[in-house]
Amino acid sequence: MSIDKLTIIGVGLIGGSLGKALRSRGLVGEVTGYGRSLENLEQALVVGAIDRHVQSVEEAVADADLIVIGTPVGQSETVFSSVAEHAGPDCVITDVGSTKGNVAAAAQQCLGAHSPNFVPGHPIAGTERQGAAAADDSLFLGRRVILTPTQETRSEALAQVREMWQGVGAVITEMDAAHHDEVLAATSHLPHVLAYALVDQLAGMQEQREIFEYAAGGFRDFTRIASSSPEMWRDIVHANRKALLPVLDAFRSNLAALSHAIENDDEESLMRCFTRAKTTRDRLIQLADPATRNHPQNAED
Amino acid sequence: MSIDKLTIIGVGLIGGSLGKALRSRGLVGEVTGYGRSLENLEQALVVGAIDRHVQSVEEAVADADLIVIGTPVGQSETVFSSVAEHAGPDCVITDVGSTKGNVAAAAQQCLGAHSPNFVPGHPIAGTERQGAAAADDSLFLGRRVILTPTQETRSEALAQVREMWQGVGAVITEMDAAHHDEVLAATSHLPHVLAYALVDQLAGMQEQREIFEYAAGGFRDFTRIASSSPEMWRDIVHANRKALLPVLDAFRSNLAALSHAIENDDEESLMRCFTRAKTTRDRLIQLADPATRNHPQNAED
Repeated sequence: MSIDKLTIIGVGLIGGSLGKALRSRGLVGEVTGYGRSLENLEQALVVGAIDRHVQSVEEAVADADLIVIGTPVGQSETVFSSVAEHAGPDCVITDVGSTKGNVAAAAQQCLGAHSPNFVPGHPIAGTERQGAAAADDSLFLGRRVILTPTQETRSEALAQVREMWQGVGAVITEMDAAHHDEVLAATSHLPHVLAYALVDQLAGMQEQREIFEYAAGGFRDFTRIASSSPEMWRDIVHANRKALLPVLDAFRSNLAALSHAIENDDEESLMRCFTRAKTTRDRLIQLADPATRNHPQNAED
Repeated sequence: MSIDKLTIIGVGLIGGSLGKALRSRGLVGEVTGYGRSLENLEQALVVGAIDRHVQSVEEAVADADLIVIGTPVGQSETVFSSVAEHAGPDCVITDVGSTKGNVAAAAQQCLGAHSPNFVPGHPIAGTERQGAAAADDSLFLGRRVILTPTQETRSEALAQVREMWQGVGAVITEMDAAHHDEVLAATSHLPHVLAYALVDQLAGMQEQREIFEYAAGGFRDFTRIASSSPEMWRDIVHANRKALLPVLDAFRSNLAALSHAIENDDEESLMRCFTRAKTTRDRLIQLADPATRNHPQNAED
């Protein structure tokens, strides 16, 4: 299968990597890029993520066969409305947003007759890097892409989006949007909030500079996700607050209990928590990531 | 400078890496290992971390010139007492514990006449790996070692320990024990507690396996420190609770405020927190680790 005319709206790390991966594998005729920043679109050209860029949504989607929306999830409604206005009736539309419930709702509201051609998607392959300059055509190799089709979604549209992702090496899973949002709230959105909160706290301390000076590799890894785009994560946190708040509340209760255990020298409770965490992580982290299974040398990277 | 007879008590990742690094550079005559696990001591022999191992503290320290204590900080008192009983009067003693206030107190209480020869130390070079099998003779290259000498510490003893660490490539800093414990509470002990708490929470969720299945690289990095030794971290948290509890309390307050902002769609507060975190991390992380400065390719590893 190959795609004739692909349009990417929002050529960031994910959109850019997808364009580059499809182009380098000969799986696409022409890739058109559209986005807010001309500088970023120029970068996308330079790194081979797109064949050309255009200056309006209308031009971008007019004769597209497949549209990939890679803009921050907070912009879904605006982008969907523009796309709906200009896309052809058979054009397949997908997105790469980190939340799916709000994207599905925006699609329902704004895509109109295009709704059956929309396949909500989420490649679990982000890094803290941003922009087309970071595009990597092996980013999706062995990575999971979660698709959350609705009852309305046409099976041909779903098949085309599946094939696109499989073509760049991803492993596809389908689930419903609400379940996606719950799982990602726990594994991705909560950790991002914790990492941002910690680094923000240290940034406010007097010994700020010294603290970072003595931070070790563990700290660098733990806080890496706090170098992610604030705008993107503000949108994600907002969009998924319904699923995020319960896990955040549960975390705050657990932390209160741990704090109490530390204060009261309850070493048994600490040991129980730390041991269960280590045992679970050691056992399950190898499953976390198909890429790790295929490339065990990455396990310690 | 080289050391004639070095004894390592507790030949774990740090002790084993130090022995291996000194031996491979020809900076030591003979390295004797002592510890609880005969299997681990055999591993230490195999990987070249020690020349021989013995079965009693008495034998281990009897004719040592320099003793490195690498046991969990919760065992400091027991180990110091045994060492004090058997070490020669001129033998220099140091440790590699992650907390320094409690180690200094234990030394004062248990080392007696040996106290002036004791140099408390902390190489900031741990990983989540454990045991002599993980020993790495380049572990300390460009890494920081914090020494916290007291007014009592003999300058000759301090000089010898400095030279030992410089010999294996470390960068030495001196500070007082209380300040060390405050800085490390923020950069190391709090993140470990958060990572353990998060993974423990996910371990208790019904979708446990699925959650880990869909976790991405960010999650793997964020939770890596939760694969650290529970026993070691129970000891550290207990030993440093005086410095840890205030930063943990501050974190809980910050998280409560963030939770409130999420619940109330206060996107401005979220953006302020996320942006300050990203800006600070991006600016200071390069300072965090001298090794990163020398090897910029590690910055994204």
